[in-house]
Parts: sequence; structure tokens; C-alpha cells
Amino acid sequence: MNFTASVIAEFLKGSVEGNPEAAVNDVSKIEEGRAGTISFLANPKYEKYIYDTKSSIVIVNADFSPQKSIPATLIRVQNAYEAFAALLRLYEQSKPKKSGISKQASISESATVGKDIYVGEFTVVSDNAILDDGVQLYPQVYVGDRVTIGEGTILHAGVKVYEGCVIGAHCVIHSGAIIGADGFGFAPNQENNYEKVPQLGKVIIEDHVEIGANTTVDRSTMGATILRKGVKLDNLIMVGHNVEIGENTVIAAQSGVSGSSKIGKNCMFGGQVGLIGHITIANGVKIAAQSGITKDIKEEGIVIQGSPAFEFGPYQRSMAIFRNLPKLVNQINDLDKRTQNL
Amino acid sequence: MNFTASVIAEFLKGSVEGNPEAAVNDVSKIEEGRAGTISFLANPKYEKYIYDTKSSIVIVNADFSPQKSIPATLIRVQNAYEAFAALLRLYEQSKPKKSGISKQASISESATVGKDIYVGEFTVVSDNAILDDGVQLYPQVYVGDRVTIGEGTILHAGVKVYEGCVIGAHCVIHSGAIIGADGFGFAPNQENNYEKVPQLGKVIIEDHVEIGANTTVDRSTMGATILRKGVKLDNLIMVGHNVEIGENTVIAAQSGVSGSSKIGKNCMFGGQVGLIGHITIANGVKIAAQSGITKDIKEEGIVIQGSPAFEFGPYQRSMAIFRNLPKLVNQINDLDKRTQNL
Amino acid sequence: MNFTASVIAEFLKGSVEGNPEAAVNDVSKIEEGRAGTISFLANPKYEKYIYDTKSSIVIVNADFSPQKSIPATLIRVQNAYEAFAALLRLYEQSKPKKSGISKQASISESATVGKDIYVGEFTVVSDNAILDDGVQLYPQVYVGDRVTIGEGTILHAGVKVYEGCVIGAHCVIHSGAIIGADGFGFAPNQENNYEKVPQLGKVIIEDHVEIGANTTVDRSTMGATILRKGVKLDNLIMVGHNVEIGENTVIAAQSGVSGSSKIGKNCMFGGQVGLIGHITIANGVKIAAQSGITKDIKEEGIVIQGSPAFEFGPYQRSMAIFRNLPKLVNQINDLDKRTQNL
Repeated sequence: MNFTASVIAEFLKGSVEGNPEAAVNDVSKIEEGRAGTISFLANPKYEKYIYDTKSSIVIVNADFSPQKSIPATLIRVQNAYEAFAALLRLYEQSKPKKSGISKQASISESATVGKDIYVGEFTVVSDNAILDDGVQLYPQVYVGDRVTIGEGTILHAGVKVYEGCVIGAHCVIHSGAIIGADGFGFAPNQENNYEKVPQLGKVIIEDHVEIGANTTVDRSTMGATILRKGVKLDNLIMVGHNVEIGENTVIAAQSGVSGSSKIGKNCMFGGQVGLIGHITIANGVKIAAQSGITKDIKEEGIVIQGSPAFEFGPYQRSMAIFRNLPKLVNQINDLDKRTQNL
Repeated sequence: MNFTASVIAEFLKGSVEGNPEAAVNDVSKIEEGRAGTISFLANPKYEKYIYDTKSSIVIVNADFSPQKSIPATLIRVQNAYEAFAALLRLYEQSKPKKSGISKQASISESATVGKDIYVGEFTVVSDNAILDDGVQLYPQVYVGDRVTIGEGTILHAGVKVYEGCVIGAHCVIHSGAIIGADGFGFAPNQENNYEKVPQLGKVIIEDHVEIGANTTVDRSTMGATILRKGVKLDNLIMVGHNVEIGENTVIAAQSGVSGSSKIGKNCMFGGQVGLIGHITIANGVKIAAQSGITKDIKEEGIVIQGSPAFEFGPYQRSMAIFRNLPKLVNQINDLDKRTQNL
Repeated sequence: MNFTASVIAEFLKGSVEGNPEAAVNDVSKIEEGRAGTISFLANPKYEKYIYDTKSSIVIVNADFSPQKSIPATLIRVQNAYEAFAALLRLYEQSKPKKSGISKQASISESATVGKDIYVGEFTVVSDNAILDDGVQLYPQVYVGDRVTIGEGTILHAGVKVYEGCVIGAHCVIHSGAIIGADGFGFAPNQENNYEKVPQLGKVIIEDHVEIGANTTVDRSTMGATILRKGVKLDNLIMVGHNVEIGENTVIAAQSGVSGSSKIGKNCMFGGQVGLIGHITIANGVKIAAQSGITKDIKEEGIVIQGSPAFEFGPYQRSMAIFRNLPKLVNQINDLDKRTQNL
């Protein structure tokens, strides 16, 4: 099915530059553009591709100013990436959804199952679990006793949710994610061994949360480990027991948050970041990849880097000098020689 | 069911300060205390909450000396965290245990199955595997050929154990942990490709080991990868082939130990630590989070930090100067100016 | 079954030093040698063990020159590690292979299934999937709609492959690996929330690729995330959306590659390395463990280290000075005193 530039521009509230009848039936990356597809340009790193892309239409930011002529038809919008994402969502919503409950699934008689549910093969729904309307459980998912899952939430193949955890509506949890395993708590005893501290709490995941593949969110000792509304976690992240992550905070892959730390709203963490336990991070804090955070961050919106981390600007200046330490040593040794007779 | 402060104090061998008839039927965190619950205070960071917690009883260390009056009844014990953990264990032991063998599990006829076993739905127990008495296999676990699992050990939903591995008694392995996948061994050949080095060994896990969610312990090329008695591994840890980890060593999340390294007893590693292969770490060594260990550590009990790591004290001093390198450069430049006519 | 030194030497095109009739029926590590076994010595760190190993035969490099007499029979070859690996492969190939399709598996009627296939219990093969001859799917594997898997490829227990992904021939994918989960893409909207950018692409894995336990390879937004022929990934690695990894590149455990980065051929990354997105790494680049790569690397074959990383030699020099910063500060303060009257 073909869509013309003018139809798409209308949907996106954008303006056409070039042939309004240019038609497409698929999407492509600008550097791999093909006739009959639509692409976008947002990151200036990719600008060079727009001048000879074979894509029929390219969505660009309103303020994009080309260096030379462009063969493709352009659609100008406020935010090219967001507009393209909206198109992709439209495209995805048109695909058929999985449905039905497999006879090879195991659903406890005491579980409550809503309408329009999908349960795949070899998925287990345990005693007193509650699945709201529209929940989709792919094959080989495990839903423990008394777990509740909100409307329209998707658990991909192989997700495991331990007993008593609460998952909100419209969440997406990817394969291999483990929700509610025991927090890491051991008390040393008199024989110099460790005894397990039972983890009797749970995990609460609010609405519109997305959790990446093989990420683990541990249950609390008491109370709950909490992911607030709109939190987005990438793959292979570790969230320790009793942690709380604020609304719309986004964390990149392989980061770890140790037990009982509290993270504010709208924070952004790069990949492989680590936080020690029992600290508090203010709203809007940005942490550079591979940083290690060892104490509270009280100032909202600051950017920090390093292991242990401090403010981004000073870190960058120290790091620039670190790279040139051999020169600095030479300078000092010269000074030393020059002043040796004083 | 209610318990009074005097009954709990007797169980914990502690002393009551306040109302001995104060009664509780649940546990809570001190900062979220509710009437009818018992909390504890061990970390001084949380002392501020004790002065207005709503918990009816708080367990504190014998030497705790309050700054002002406390509404709750106190129970003083040697070690508040340990005592609270003992209470939680009592509470947990009172919960009903999973039991029975699901008709939807697949158990080989050649497997040996002990008494009081739990095997959940869609779990696979392969040829010649041995499950000792009291083993609990949650749903979707995979137990490969000739695996043996000791008395009372729990494998949570989705654990995978490759053929021939040996797991001791009273272990807990959390969801998504992979025991016995191939070590990472490839030999370059003359065509500049890599050829796989078969991994013919196994993993041996001794008694009382706990392994976190999505942690991986690779099988050895020959011989065995070994986790000694009482080892505690957090989530998302990588243990390479032919590694040996000594008794009661505790490793925090997302750390990695490369092939053939040997770690002593009673070590403690922070999160996101990395060790190269073929090194030896003495007993009792403590490694700060995010450190990288590139050579043998021979001194027992030392604390190290950094990537590459060295001793904690010197590392802290170097790091303090690193933060102030711009000032140091200014000082040097001033010196340079002052002495330029020499 | 016993093999003599002379038979093994003939197979390996090596020469015997000692008793050509020495016979073995098993393999062992040189430091754990037993009579009747064959070991190898390649890493000089282990040379000390050869002088009293109980192994009957030891494979050594042609240029190995002993410091004293050795009780074992030696077989000298070009490359001892490679030769030993060849023996292990021979040994492994002699073991019986899993075969047959379990009645407890779920295979869609629309799937295409080749010859000599193994499908274990509770494995799911979805609509229109294609399994080539000799594919081995262990229990609890999930193969999504329209996935294709090439000849002789092995998916270990619990691997999950999302819809539409393409896996080549002779690959090995270990338990818990997740192929094709959504890339991490969200566009901020006007309400300060994030909206998901649908990930409509796929993952393409070429021939002879090995992927470690619990590693995740995300699908692309459009186009494909690509692992070229012969790539070897260790455990717990994160490969972001739209990444491309070149032929025979080898990456150690817990490393992460952010979205849209392109890595050349024959690269080697240590463990816990991180790359930001949208960068390009030249062929043959080596990256030290725990490094962080923040920009393009254009020079083929260089070695880099640090976070952020720069060239290995300069990094080592800066790091050596970092360790001695307190001394440097003393030197500067002495200088300062000496020159204070200028």
C-alpha cells in the first residue's frame, strides 16, 4: 500500500518540499535508502547521506538547511526523529497481534484472566495471579503466585516474575528479564559464614515502563523495589533490592544500582554506570557512561562523570591533563634542574 | 498472629527497653514503619528515622545511644541486622513450601529422584541426572545429562544447568543463571579464523552457595570450574572457565572473573569488578567496585581499588590529586614564570 | 580406548621425544596431570608444572627448551594449544549427538524442518520458521515467526530468538542468549515522557558465529544488526541496535556496543569494554579490558586503553605517573619552597 508525500506530511503536520506525489510503501535508513521508501535525517553525522540517498522521501527538521541539491522529496517537521517514530508506530500498529491462550500453557485455576489475552506455549501462570485485559505473555514466561499484571502489558518469551510482584499497565518486558529474584543480603555469623537474610518484599513496576533483555530487578527485603511510571531500562541492567527509580528516568545497558539507592525523575544514565547502595540522586541528573557514583548527588540536573564521579567539566579538565602527564613531568623536571642551585 | 516484645527478646537473647507487651504481626523498614510492625536500626544513616517511626518495636545494637526519646519499644541485641535476619528466617520458614512433581515436567526414566522433591511445569530433568532429597526445581528449569543436585537445593524458574555439572546441598540458584555453558576458548588457525577449543570439563558448586539472577558460570576446558562452600554471587556475574572461587567469598553484581584465575577464601568484591585470567588472589582481599585486577595479589586481607588497581590508600591519594590537577598545573605554571630568568 | 604417543604425533604432524609407546585414554590439565592422560604446555606461566606432572604425554611448542629433565613423553608441534584443541575436537566429535524431535516440543505446521534435526522438550518453533538440516535446538528454546536457522547450528537450552531474525550455519548460541529483542529507542514527546520508537528491523548472524550465555543482540530500528562470519562473543555482552561487527572479531565478557556503531574485522576487545553509539572502529583494533571508547578509531591494528581510551603506550605512561602523583606533588611543593623568594 502506497502513501504519498502529501498524505504523510498531513499526518505529521509537516510541509512538503519537492514532489508531493512521491509515493512510498516501506521505511529505510538514509544510508541504505531505496526507491519507494521513506527515511529521516536528525543526527548531523548522517547529513552527508541525504545528498545521494535513493529514498523517495526524507523527513527532516524544520531548520535543516541543505548544502547542495537533494534528489529526494523532503518533508519538514518540528522534530524529524519524533515524526519518523510516529510513522513507525502507525506501521507497527497495523501488524496483527498475537492472541489466544495456548493449550500447552499452564494456568492455575485460581488465576484471574482478563479479556483479549495472549498466552503462549509452555508459559506458567501460578496461583492467584491476575492478568488484566489485553496482557500478552509470549511462550515460556513464568508468572509466580499472586503476581498482578496490568492492562496491555507484554512479557516476551522467557521472562520470569517471582511471586507477589506487581507490574503496571502498558509495560514491555523483554526476554530473559528477571523480576523479583532475591536481593543480595547476607549477615555474617559467628562461624565466619554468611547467613541469608530472607527477602520478603516485592517489586512494583508502574505503568509505561520498558525493561530490556536479561535485566534483573531484585525484590526488596521488606517493602518494595519500585520502578516509577515511564522508567526505561536497557538490557543487562542490575537493579538491587529496595531501590527506587523515579518517573521517566532512562538507564542504558549494563548499568547497576546497588541496594536501597533512590534515583530521581528524568535522570539519564549512560551504559555501564555503577551506583553504590544507600545513596540519593536528585532529579534530572545525567551520568556519563562507565561512571561510578559513591555519594549522594543533591544538585538537580547536573552532569557527572568518572569513577569515582565528579562534575563533568572539572572531570574533562582533569582527564585532559591526565593524558598529558608525561609532558607535565618533563616540565617539572626542567624546573627542578633550572632551580637546583637555589 | 501477634508476638510481644518480651517473647521476641527472649528468642533473640536481647533486652527490652520500653513496653514488654508491645505486640507485632509484621515487619517493616524503619522509615516506613507502621503500628503493629517490628523494624531494625543498624546503619547509622537511618538513625534519624527512629525518633518518629510508627513501628511498635525496633531492634537496635546493644551500644546504640539515642539522641532523644523514642516512642517505639526497643530490643537491644549484639547485632541488630543479624538478629532481624534471624526473625525473617523464622518468618520465612513458616511459609508453605512448594511440593510435588508436575505432570507437565519431563523427567528422564534414567534420572534418580529423591524424596520430598518439587518439580514445576515444563522443567526438564535429563538422562542419568540425580536429584537428592528435598530438591526444588521451579518451572522451566533445565537439568542436563548426568547433572547431580544436592539435598535441599533450590533452582528458581528458568535456571539452565549443562550436562555433567555438580551442584551441592542447600544452594539457591536464581532465575536465568546459566551453569556450565562452554568456556570462551578459540585457537587461531592458519586461515586467520578461530577454531573452537571444546570445553570438556564441568562446573562443581559446593554446599551453601547462592547464585544470583542471570549470572553465568562457565564449564572448564578440562577439570572443573569450582565454587567452594558458602560462595555468594550476586546477579549478572561472569565466572570464566577453570576459575576457582574460595570459601565464603562474596562478589557483587556485574563483576567478571576471567578464565583460570583462582580467588581465595573470604574475599569481598564490589560490583562491576573485572579480573584478567590466570591470576591468583589471596584470602580476605577486598576489591572496590569497578576495579580492574591485572596481576596476582599475594598479601592477604588488603584492600585495592582502581583500573588497573593498586592499594586503596595510595589510590585514594592519587585520585584526590587527579581531581585537582588543574590547580596543580596552575601552580607549576606559576613556578615556571617565577623561575624563567634562572 | 588407548592411543600411543606415536599415533597422536602422527595425527598432529609432530615429533615424539621420549617413549613412543606411552599410552593415554583421557586429557588433563598439566597441573592436575594423571598417569594415562595427555596434557599441553603453551603459556610459560605453567612451565613449572611440566617438570613433575604425572601426565604420560605433554604436547609442547616446537621451540620449547626445558630447564631440566621431564618424566613425561613430549610431542613437539608448531602450536601446542592449537594441536591440543584439535585433539579435543576429535574427542568431542566421537561423543553421541542429541537427535529426534520431542513430542513435548511445539512446532508450527507452517515451519520448515530439515533432516537430522534435534528439538528438545518445551521448545517452540513458530510460524514460517525454517530449520536447516542438522539444526539442534535444546529444550525450552524459542524460535519466533519467520526465523531461519542455518545448517548444523546449535541453540542451547533456553535461547530466545525474536521474529524475523536470520541465523547462519554452524553457529553455537549458548543458554540465555537473547537474539532480536527491541533496540533501546525512545523519542521524548511534548509531555516530557518518552514514546517508544518501534524496532522493525532484525538481527542477521552469519556462519560460524559463537554467542555466549546471556548475551543480548538487539534487533535494529530498520535494516539489520549484523554479526559477520566467525564473530565470537563471550557471555553477558550487549550488542545494540543497528550495530555491525566485522568478520572474526572476538569480544570478551560483559562488553557493550551501543547503537549504530560499526566494528571492523579481526578486532579483539577485552572484558567490560564499552563503546558509545554511532562510531566506527577500524580492522584489527585491540581494546584493553574496561576501556571506554568515545570516538572513531581510524588506525588499523592499534591498541587502546582507558576510559575514555587513548593509545596503549601513552595510557600506560600516564597511568604510571598517576600512581606516583603524591610524589610529584611533593616534588612540586619542594620546588615551590625553594623558589619562594624569587
